[in-house]
Amino acid sequence: MREVAIIGVGMIDWGELWGKSLREIWAEAALAALDDAGIDRVDLITVGCMSPGLFVGQEHLASLLADEIGMAGVASTRVESACASGSLAFRAGFAEVAAGLSDLVLVTGVEKMTDVDGADATYALGTAADQELEGFHGITFPGLYAMMARVHMAHHGTTSRQLAAVAAKNHANGLLNPHAQYHMRVSIDDVLGSTMVADPLHLLDCSPITDGAAAVVLAPLDKAKDHVGNRTVVKVAGSGLATDTIALANREDLARLRAVELAAERAYVMAGRRPSDIHVAEVHDCFTIAEIMATEALGFFEPGEGGPAAERGLTALGDRLPINPSGGLKSKGHPVGATGVAQIAEITLQLLGKAGQRQVEGARVGLTQNMGGSGGSSTVHILEAV
Amino acid sequence: MREVAIIGVGMIDWGELWGKSLREIWAEAALAALDDAGIDRVDLITVGCMSPGLFVGQEHLASLLADEIGMAGVASTRVESACASGSLAFRAGFAEVAAGLSDLVLVTGVEKMTDVDGADATYALGTAADQELEGFHGITFPGLYAMMARVHMAHHGTTSRQLAAVAAKNHANGLLNPHAQYHMRVSIDDVLGSTMVADPLHLLDCSPITDGAAAVVLAPLDKAKDHVGNRTVVKVAGSGLATDTIALANREDLARLRAVELAAERAYVMAGRRPSDIHVAEVHDCFTIAEIMATEALGFFEPGEGGPAAERGLTALGDRLPINPSGGLKSKGHPVGATGVAQIAEITLQLLGKAGQRQVEGARVGLTQNMGGSGGSSTVHILEAV
Repeated sequence: MREVAIIGVGMIDWGELWGKSLREIWAEAALAALDDAGIDRVDLITVGCMSPGLFVGQEHLASLLADEIGMAGVASTRVESACASGSLAFRAGFAEVAAGLSDLVLVTGVEKMTDVDGADATYALGTAADQELEGFHGITFPGLYAMMARVHMAHHGTTSRQLAAVAAKNHANGLLNPHAQYHMRVSIDDVLGSTMVADPLHLLDCSPITDGAAAVVLAPLDKAKDHVGNRTVVKVAGSGLATDTIALANREDLARLRAVELAAERAYVMAGRRPSDIHVAEVHDCFTIAEIMATEALGFFEPGEGGPAAERGLTALGDRLPINPSGGLKSKGHPVGATGVAQIAEITLQLLGKAGQRQVEGARVGLTQNMGGSGGSSTVHILEAV
Repeated sequence: MREVAIIGVGMIDWGELWGKSLREIWAEAALAALDDAGIDRVDLITVGCMSPGLFVGQEHLASLLADEIGMAGVASTRVESACASGSLAFRAGFAEVAAGLSDLVLVTGVEKMTDVDGADATYALGTAADQELEGFHGITFPGLYAMMARVHMAHHGTTSRQLAAVAAKNHANGLLNPHAQYHMRVSIDDVLGSTMVADPLHLLDCSPITDGAAAVVLAPLDKAKDHVGNRTVVKVAGSGLATDTIALANREDLARLRAVELAAERAYVMAGRRPSDIHVAEVHDCFTIAEIMATEALGFFEPGEGGPAAERGLTALGDRLPINPSGGLKSKGHPVGATGVAQIAEITLQLLGKAGQRQVEGARVGLTQNMGGSGGSSTVHILEAV
């Protein structure tokens, strides 16, 4: 298997981008990544996108978007696994380069979510849940995560204040990220005082609806120096994918994210790394409880210790293990198909020492964790500066 | 790069399967392929599906379907490129095995199209066209292919009778395929006498709306013998992907399928094969004109010779180069996400000498060509008996 490096990163400002179309925001991110890599052609494009059919009425993005940047003819494919679509598009590109089927791959993620009204967006997102066991009964994602939070509280004594600490930290980080959707300081009391959406989750425990895109460029590691000279390069050291039942009703333990545990195990084994080797991580904080459960599933903290760790500040910038320096889904935004690629982009910048005010000093090994639905699918990637 | 073999095939009866759900038909095909391969676990599942969001209101299939066959936990991913989704799922699995990331991969395709009414199905399929340049103006796929047919007729003198000959041949082949949606003899005059849908395409020039699923199992070639003993194995010799503008308005020549030409070139180079080496092919006959244009783009016939070749019977079973022995999309049916995988399944059976009454004698090298939209994306795979 060939080793694979990331040689370019493209991020754009995320938000409610009513003046731009899906193809426009995608092209901005794609061209930024190509520019960063210093190339103007690739062998393959991969596109992570959850539901362009329901959000904007357009499928067949792989072809459409290649043409949008003047590359009609190039191989191109779209990958979907709900909110984990972006990282699965990254894995697809990684496999192509690792196999030697493609040399240069433009990995992208995009979602345009604000062109439909709130009810239609909720319906579209709801198709990531099990239609027969969950959707038809009317439950949506805040409700599903609220049930997981309730069980986590019951098993481990996790508190609403601990959940709120995750939101406060990620909004503090987002203030340092010029691309983030929200630039506002949020206190623990702000979270606890915000509207209850699905008990125990308040409005400020939830990630937002976002338009956004992100991109990175992959190349074989042994050819990466041709493109970036003698500068530091980021290598893809480990890649793990896994699933769980998408219906909560079929899970043995709602306080654990089994897909994250399995994906992490696979990625750690492949990279020859342990949780204690990780200097910085981007994890899937679609709701505050998700970040707490993910940090436990990834082995950063023991089960039940994720909440106290967040409240004590261990996951803040400058502390033991900074989590979501980008602001996470909570503050940076969550354009579902783009999120997984943006996580890779953030960790790449961190490992290159290019993360500006939110830089984690000395970060050489980083991790990303991206999740679909209520944990029905998850990926974990481990990146290393070499 | 590791060489990759197909060690199992799963096909089910296709049609209007109103009594079954998407997950049920998928599971039938998936389990049939696993049974054929003699295995009960895989490292990865890939799912080709165009628009489960619009057709049945369910995304996140990769996780849902893994759980449906008792494999929650396994890595799983969904791939989409409109009607080429199935073959892109095959390519995704191929890349994983070739890279050494996965050993055993269950490659699947599925579409459940009859759970919505005709207008909604037309809308869903229409999302494979360019929304801004085509969809918003009201054109649907019969109209797009009719324009291509008109230009082909004008450039090359292709006739309605030649188009009809494709339908007659494929329906004759479909009579020999127990899984086909339609078992009926159709004459050239039947086609010419059927309702005009979009001039010059009659109803019987068009492939139908279908529910269906198909699956194959991949393994490293050097381990394939562990599973199938000393029997003949089918190797994946070549894989080519390409795109074109999805909007017809942006193409230089509507009488050519540029994505098919590029994908074929890439697959032939990889396999070290030429068009004259191919003994049997499954091509994407969503409309009769598409088969004629594809056989030209694949290099089987010179531009303008595809129509006469079909009318003279050169592509019939027992003649020079049998095309679509399965009955093709026209007679076997066209559940869009499943079609590309079913093409691989058919050629695998042909190369193993297991195609029953429709067997192409002595076939050792076969080709599949699967296409998205009006040719906005295409794949070509070359398979060989070894």
